[in-house]
Amino acid sequence: MPATSVFNKEGANRPRVVIVGAGFAGLSAAKALKKADVSVTLIDRRNHHLFQPLLYQVATAGLSPSQIATPIRSIVRDLKNTEVILGDVIGVSTQEKLVQLVSREIAYDYLILATGARHSYFGNERWEADAPGLKTIEDATELRKRVLLAFERAEQEMDPVARRRLLTFVVIGGGPTGVEMAGAIAELSHKALAMDFRHIDTKSTRTILVESGSRVLAAFPEKMSAYAKTSLECLGVEVLLGRPVTSIAEKGVMVGDLAIDAASIIWAAGVMSSPVAKWIGAEADRAGRTIVGDDLTVAAHKEIFVLGDCGHALDETGKPLPGLAPVAKQQGVYAAQVIKARIAEKAPPPPFTYQNFGIMATIGRKSAVADFGKVQLTGLLGWLVWSLVHVYYLIGFRNRLAVAVDWAWSYLTFDRGSRLITGAVDEG
Amino acid sequence: MPATSVFNKEGANRPRVVIVGAGFAGLSAAKALKKADVSVTLIDRRNHHLFQPLLYQVATAGLSPSQIATPIRSIVRDLKNTEVILGDVIGVSTQEKLVQLVSREIAYDYLILATGARHSYFGNERWEADAPGLKTIEDATELRKRVLLAFERAEQEMDPVARRRLLTFVVIGGGPTGVEMAGAIAELSHKALAMDFRHIDTKSTRTILVESGSRVLAAFPEKMSAYAKTSLECLGVEVLLGRPVTSIAEKGVMVGDLAIDAASIIWAAGVMSSPVAKWIGAEADRAGRTIVGDDLTVAAHKEIFVLGDCGHALDETGKPLPGLAPVAKQQGVYAAQVIKARIAEKAPPPPFTYQNFGIMATIGRKSAVADFGKVQLTGLLGWLVWSLVHVYYLIGFRNRLAVAVDWAWSYLTFDRGSRLITGAVDEG
Repeated sequence: MPATSVFNKEGANRPRVVIVGAGFAGLSAAKALKKADVSVTLIDRRNHHLFQPLLYQVATAGLSPSQIATPIRSIVRDLKNTEVILGDVIGVSTQEKLVQLVSREIAYDYLILATGARHSYFGNERWEADAPGLKTIEDATELRKRVLLAFERAEQEMDPVARRRLLTFVVIGGGPTGVEMAGAIAELSHKALAMDFRHIDTKSTRTILVESGSRVLAAFPEKMSAYAKTSLECLGVEVLLGRPVTSIAEKGVMVGDLAIDAASIIWAAGVMSSPVAKWIGAEADRAGRTIVGDDLTVAAHKEIFVLGDCGHALDETGKPLPGLAPVAKQQGVYAAQVIKARIAEKAPPPPFTYQNFGIMATIGRKSAVADFGKVQLTGLLGWLVWSLVHVYYLIGFRNRLAVAVDWAWSYLTFDRGSRLITGAVDEG
Repeated sequence: MPATSVFNKEGANRPRVVIVGAGFAGLSAAKALKKADVSVTLIDRRNHHLFQPLLYQVATAGLSPSQIATPIRSIVRDLKNTEVILGDVIGVSTQEKLVQLVSREIAYDYLILATGARHSYFGNERWEADAPGLKTIEDATELRKRVLLAFERAEQEMDPVARRRLLTFVVIGGGPTGVEMAGAIAELSHKALAMDFRHIDTKSTRTILVESGSRVLAAFPEKMSAYAKTSLECLGVEVLLGRPVTSIAEKGVMVGDLAIDAASIIWAAGVMSSPVAKWIGAEADRAGRTIVGDDLTVAAHKEIFVLGDCGHALDETGKPLPGLAPVAKQQGVYAAQVIKARIAEKAPPPPFTYQNFGIMATIGRKSAVADFGKVQLTGLLGWLVWSLVHVYYLIGFRNRLAVAVDWAWSYLTFDRGSRLITGAVDEG
């Protein structure tokens, strides 16, 4: 490629920091570099930052996409040393220190890779068509379309067996996303849609949560897993534990030797890192996450940081850090500190340690579990704390207000305002 | 098709009213039939009612789709005699009184056709790819994507001529939609985006409104057209009058013998009725609208009503009624009255007359024109009245509140919160 295609080659008097990915890690790094004497280029293939913890709300028509997605440019508007590039990274030349986009290259002195993860089918990629996952806005609106269309088709279906199948939803994976999806679908069918159909009783909808392990929310204490299971069952969710999914097809799911006829299958069972390790020729773990040292850089390239869901960093006990927003945010701040120290030729900061303030998961409209170590909350109190924390962390006051209004409204009325089916619909 | 595929054949003891289209006309007819002893089937190919007057706000990132679209089922939830069918009508058998969907048929005693209009290129349908129009949510999110991507690409473009082209927007058609789009694009570029880019000055964006007639907003008094033109120019819009578009290609537009290089072209110059007249073998005008009598039925089938944008009804002076939401709503109520009178074997109501309360169009963030006959408003006062009326008529309290919050916020900050680029993006 000719040198003129290097976007930021000229006029770079300051160290160039290139950040790939405007998720929690990338944005927190950019913000932490606000006053540093560097030139930051933030690259993302989307023009918006996505608040992934609430993505399941879009998939279940509780929130609209623009309530959990914010234009990256408005988030970094006040970071005068930061420019934003909408583009798809296809590789990295570690030798020339260039990030390669489709039609140009971007030079870096420091590189922060934080491109997140996609859902993974562990080698059964053919399952994706029948059991889509949930990582992007398009994933969420596609799932929303499938869920809402299932009810529309059931309303017009006169064969009781086919109708039964249309009103059966299977969620695979008992982690926070699976639990949240199953709870939200059960609520949607039992409450929000209950008055809207004439031929079907949406309350007869079956929602089945399948988890191959022995409990849901395995990252939480056992007591809270049990609480979550009971809460789900109170909402009408059937929870199947200890049995793996053995096959998925258009007509339904095999869970061990149990066949479940279901028109809608949702995959929430695993993630795979984006291919950062391949770009830079670094070592990766089984989930594709790049192995990084305790300063979050890769061994062969101390100028390359890999953060968030695509990095494999260890906690003090030697376990890999979980793929959570707080981990990503703290790593972003840390990487900025390392860069600032190096530029100032100061001693590097101490190794990265994750400050764990707790974990949370919600189960429907008024129940959640929150584990803050010493303090453990469940039920309505857990839900209130969960809501406060999530609304607080949603980027931008504007979204916070809109989400708060929306939740208050949904809570009072059981309504779900974002029940739009958009995009192409094949008539059943 | 076998008789068993007729969805509502059995158990119909009451007269069956089938309404095709859940726009303003169809919904107002369903509502006006709420207490009538009829069985109503409301068919729409979408699951949502769309508040089309505000669609341009979605296209210019001011509002999100769910703020102007409401699930049909929640709107008619309290109409106990009404069922909703999501489906695509492909024809009508007027002899057997059946509405034909792809996979079933629906029997009617009274049929209300209110399927609206699409934009039309007057025989130049090849222009559509380069100059999309604005009638559906997908049209609006596609336009939003194009407009926002033009700025993103300009930011990365180093050739000044290509950059100039990317920052040139042409809106074709000087009716309310064209005026609103041009004003909103000018505001987007001059205000909302002004701080967000590092390499381009979004204030240098050219927005050109092309109208083949001698003035914009031709349905308004001449004085108000002149006011609208001046208001647009104050926002930075170039208004070209009296010259028709002679060709459209990917690179730009020919307006008479003037060539305009523009990456983004928006069509707001004309509409064509949906093919209702063909379904029922009735007479249509040049825009495809079905000719109806003064009771809004077609001559050969007094049980078939054609309402709103797909009907051609006359006012007292013999001119066709305009394609406006108030016309459609009043026609829906009238058709319900006729049906109720016939069922009760009472005298039919007097011929339909349109109660014209006035027309309005907005030009950007704080200016509008409103013609109420004796009272004519322009400027900020016009805009306030325009806002009040539009927020008031948005269906559903929830949307009203959300839109009001959003507008108040945008007004105070010039921000545009719904700036999402979703769907596939080809990297430029």
